[in-house]
Amino acid sequence: MKECYDRLPRIEGLNHVQLTPISFLKRACDVYPDHESIVYGSRTYTWHSTADRCLGLASGLRKLGVSTGTTVAMMAANTPELAEAHFGVPMSRGVLNSINTRLDPDTIAYILDHGDAQVLITDTQFSPVISKALDKLDTRPMVIDIVDEQAEGGERLGTMTYEDLLTIGDGTGDWGFPESEWDALTLNYTSGTSGRPKGVVYHHRGSYLMSMGTVSAWQIPKHPRYLYTVPMFHCNGWGHVWTMTLMGGTLVCNRAVNAETIFRSIREHRITHFGAAPIVLAMLANAPEEVRYTPDYTVEVMTAGAPPPSKILERSQRLGFNVTHVYGLTETYGHVVFCDWKAQWSQLDIDRQAEIKARQGVRFPMMESARVVDTRTGEDVPADGSTMGEVVLQGNPVMKGYYKNPEATDEAFKDGWFHSGDLAVLYPDGYLEIKDRLKDIIISGGENISSIEVESALYKHPKVAAAAVIAKPDENWGETPCAFVELKPGEAATEDEIIDFCRDHMAGYKRPRHVVFLELPKTSTGKIQKFKLRGLIEDGKV
Amino acid sequence: MKECYDRLPRIEGLNHVQLTPISFLKRACDVYPDHESIVYGSRTYTWHSTADRCLGLASGLRKLGVSTGTTVAMMAANTPELAEAHFGVPMSRGVLNSINTRLDPDTIAYILDHGDAQVLITDTQFSPVISKALDKLDTRPMVIDIVDEQAEGGERLGTMTYEDLLTIGDGTGDWGFPESEWDALTLNYTSGTSGRPKGVVYHHRGSYLMSMGTVSAWQIPKHPRYLYTVPMFHCNGWGHVWTMTLMGGTLVCNRAVNAETIFRSIREHRITHFGAAPIVLAMLANAPEEVRYTPDYTVEVMTAGAPPPSKILERSQRLGFNVTHVYGLTETYGHVVFCDWKAQWSQLDIDRQAEIKARQGVRFPMMESARVVDTRTGEDVPADGSTMGEVVLQGNPVMKGYYKNPEATDEAFKDGWFHSGDLAVLYPDGYLEIKDRLKDIIISGGENISSIEVESALYKHPKVAAAAVIAKPDENWGETPCAFVELKPGEAATEDEIIDFCRDHMAGYKRPRHVVFLELPKTSTGKIQKFKLRGLIEDGKV
Repeated sequence: MKECYDRLPRIEGLNHVQLTPISFLKRACDVYPDHESIVYGSRTYTWHSTADRCLGLASGLRKLGVSTGTTVAMMAANTPELAEAHFGVPMSRGVLNSINTRLDPDTIAYILDHGDAQVLITDTQFSPVISKALDKLDTRPMVIDIVDEQAEGGERLGTMTYEDLLTIGDGTGDWGFPESEWDALTLNYTSGTSGRPKGVVYHHRGSYLMSMGTVSAWQIPKHPRYLYTVPMFHCNGWGHVWTMTLMGGTLVCNRAVNAETIFRSIREHRITHFGAAPIVLAMLANAPEEVRYTPDYTVEVMTAGAPPPSKILERSQRLGFNVTHVYGLTETYGHVVFCDWKAQWSQLDIDRQAEIKARQGVRFPMMESARVVDTRTGEDVPADGSTMGEVVLQGNPVMKGYYKNPEATDEAFKDGWFHSGDLAVLYPDGYLEIKDRLKDIIISGGENISSIEVESALYKHPKVAAAAVIAKPDENWGETPCAFVELKPGEAATEDEIIDFCRDHMAGYKRPRHVVFLELPKTSTGKIQKFKLRGLIEDGKV
Repeated sequence: MKECYDRLPRIEGLNHVQLTPISFLKRACDVYPDHESIVYGSRTYTWHSTADRCLGLASGLRKLGVSTGTTVAMMAANTPELAEAHFGVPMSRGVLNSINTRLDPDTIAYILDHGDAQVLITDTQFSPVISKALDKLDTRPMVIDIVDEQAEGGERLGTMTYEDLLTIGDGTGDWGFPESEWDALTLNYTSGTSGRPKGVVYHHRGSYLMSMGTVSAWQIPKHPRYLYTVPMFHCNGWGHVWTMTLMGGTLVCNRAVNAETIFRSIREHRITHFGAAPIVLAMLANAPEEVRYTPDYTVEVMTAGAPPPSKILERSQRLGFNVTHVYGLTETYGHVVFCDWKAQWSQLDIDRQAEIKARQGVRFPMMESARVVDTRTGEDVPADGSTMGEVVLQGNPVMKGYYKNPEATDEAFKDGWFHSGDLAVLYPDGYLEIKDRLKDIIISGGENISSIEVESALYKHPKVAAAAVIAKPDENWGETPCAFVELKPGEAATEDEIIDFCRDHMAGYKRPRHVVFLELPKTSTGKIQKFKLRGLIEDGKV
């Protein structure tokens, strides 16, 4: 009877425990104390010593006044310090704001100010840009320096080093489990391709479940040896610092990510798993013979951001890599959809395999729903592999919201779904494939034209260095594609030449009607700022 | 700043989704619709058809009036119906009470009455015992018959068959996700070795996390092929029906569990995982040559209840089984501690391996804490491998409590810990090993004597069929061990003979001082009822 079931006690800490990735560290320390936790050059740690350092960091931060909801910003490479901060900052009850190391001083200042950072832990390698950022602030956070002999120098900006911080606490070993699993865990700013970056807030529950579900989907065995190539400032490195701790793994860190360090790490540390953008995969596939290394076992590689081309895929397989294509956003803690590979597909030829692997696929187990819906009606698009719709998501690993930005939060969460802003098609087997950003799609004469498709064609032109395609209002067609093209140094081309080239590479109605030659505006991380190009069109300048 | 983080919206169903194993079925249906879900003799299902049947069951039960907190009892073998009920009953918002099929009519009547069952789904094979149980009830539940051609007949007791039930609903396909993850999911009665059985209540959150953590610890790959040898009425078959669904696995069901069906299933269905009590392992290890089958891959086997002896372990390894020893209780959804194997241990000789594997080990990742504490002070015992203490636990997979039994619930939950009632020692590496039930330990002259150790020695005596050792009050020693012995048919023995035998097999102070020969009182499932033997001592009869 309902009332008898309802009467049973919920005792906090006994039969109801707040979910948090801090649990993973506590267990790794209890169960695998002597197992290698982090390797970074000549520095190596065990789970016992890592836990010790995280406890020290938490205690030190508390001494500095950090408590529930205090933002602790961090500007660091993929070093042990940043991995430790993924536990130590939450254990101080603070919120970790790991900043993109490639940003400009102005944006960094904006993030420190908007994010209310009280403490900034910064690697001296980034002192030049950080000191400029700090100069722009009215109120400076407390600054702690990471002084690392593997860094390329850089002056000290703070009053205390990171190593000192680990020692100033009370040493009582308080693990700092959160009072609520809904408490904020980290703050991650988006890249700002469409204006000022937005602060995405993660919580403990979402991160715990993200890790559990990642183990299931990626089938991570015990003691993975994980090479950290994905920057930890990006969606907290896809949450893998927490996930690998759950599995008692070893994190291998490098300050620089290039073909040589990756292959050397795989060889020296018998790496079993890593994550890599397709550009990194391409770099590895095309690396010179003397740098390459093929292990005698399969390395599991996660890739996201763009589908891996068949040539890269084939070469990756020959290098012993099994590539899994995933999809997600900063707003979803990273990957929430993946191309769940079916055994029979491995029998297909490599081009067909690449075609399937280009699909982002199906949801991870910790996600409740991933649909592709008509943007007007909210109904599912037909699973025909051609009708485009927006990807909308539900699940525990969806952000708490954008920090101090209720309008953007409401917009992202309208109608009970998280709106990804990505357009996809759905195949008959339920696998989805991303086609474009919603705001980049061009609707011409009632037909959808994917800006990505037109851009892909433009990139094939031998004279084109970079390209972006934007919708331009048109009296007859509603919109037509307008191409913004940056030519390779020393090259020259005409509008007709480009349009003719496109006509040979796609259906006629998809070809650009206008071509503008210019140096494309980019963010500090190299992403093209389409909103600026859109501004040129709106202002009637092109 | 805390208030800015706290202000972010928690939107039910969007960025906060109630945890429930129903999610696993929905995803298996979405992602692996054509993959084999359940195999039972000539009957096979896919995840799509299983989901369909579960939706039908839920809808049918709702039609019968089942709603949140209604108990639905089930008396069934390990058939597809019972597996389906693990989803279909919760999807109707009801609570599944799967009853031990070996119980007597009186205990079944007690459970149906105490558990407030409104509906009873019963396999006709159990009609003889169920009809007697129903006769004892003042108010009968609604009875639904499972009519299975693989059953050994049995009369129908209800007005509707299970197959009919699947069709009477509204067919709207309501998945019935719970309003709260804290809602009751199942009700499991303990075996009643110490009196009337207690009703252990599980909730959705605990079960979801149990499955996620089991995947991590047991390293279950995608699409496991799982042989269901553990009865699903026992801790919901260790929760594996949910866990295997999470991994898109295949459940292979058999009505009978014996060496022949197990080996045949492994061969025919390429079983990758199963669970087995040590007695089942022994049965397999000792099976005749013509029945045995050794696959060309490793089968992962979980065992619980008693440590696997080295001989059995050695033979199991030769059969291609990798045995993992686990520990848990009905109150903890099954296994929560396991002997997490270290690679270097595989180099040791088999006796030493068995010695280590006898340890129950360390906590699963979904458990927060598993300690061994002094029963008087509540402090951790020294990790010396010899000091005994009680195993106490904390974690989400700890029951909601005992149904309609607040006294027993309070007792089990005292001081903020779940008290297992099991005594263990802790080794220096943090692995625990169960030594006895707390209430069975004998304290003689200040020394702990494990009743299990004395019983193990008695079982080695060639004339002994069964034995139980109980503390008997003693003026000088406080307590001394009293042995209750059941001899093999046709055998005769003297008290001195037994005591002398024990003296040769253990430290002198541990030997029984009294030996009582009798037929031991047992539960319907064959467990010795020590409380009745204790009664004989208390009443001064021995």
